[in-house]
Amino acid sequence: MKARIYVTLRKGVLDPQGKAIQRSLSHLGMEGVDEIRVGKFMEVTLGEMTRPDAEKLLDDACRRLIANTVIEDYRFEIEG
Amino acid sequence: MKARIYVTLRKGVLDPQGKAIQRSLSHLGMEGVDEIRVGKFMEVTLGEMTRPDAEKLLDDACRRLIANTVIEDYRFEIEG
Repeated sequence: MKARIYVTLRKGVLDPQGKAIQRSLSHLGMEGVDEIRVGKFMEVTLGEMTRPDAEKLLDDACRRLIANTVIEDYRFEIEG
Repeated sequence: MKARIYVTLRKGVLDPQGKAIQRSLSHLGMEGVDEIRVGKFMEVTLGEMTRPDAEKLLDDACRRLIANTVIEDYRFEIEG
């Protein structure tokens, strides 16, 4: 079973990495980007389990380890 | 115009960050994750432009700045 996790900065939280990329693009002559916000993306391979178990596992993993929920939001998709 | 960029490690490239997350989950009692591979995810807001221009801009940005194409693959989606 495959899943994907997306972790993004909450609205209003500053993203210096995104700003740096945006500025670098402009310095390289690539104009037209108004904003970039950088997040994390994870491809997860799960063992044999039911879909509800997978949902619980991923939600726990995000809440307890992967995302800092003070400044980050997370969401996940389970394939199939 | 909104777009999303996904940068992932190429197949075969070691991912110590993913391994560390996997091990930590196991230490926290969350079993069932066979593999985690960590990538980057970007939410991009583009100015007014045509879709082909947006595709060219994003492809250039990924190739020249955002992704290290020796070890990383990239793909992007343009919304709407």
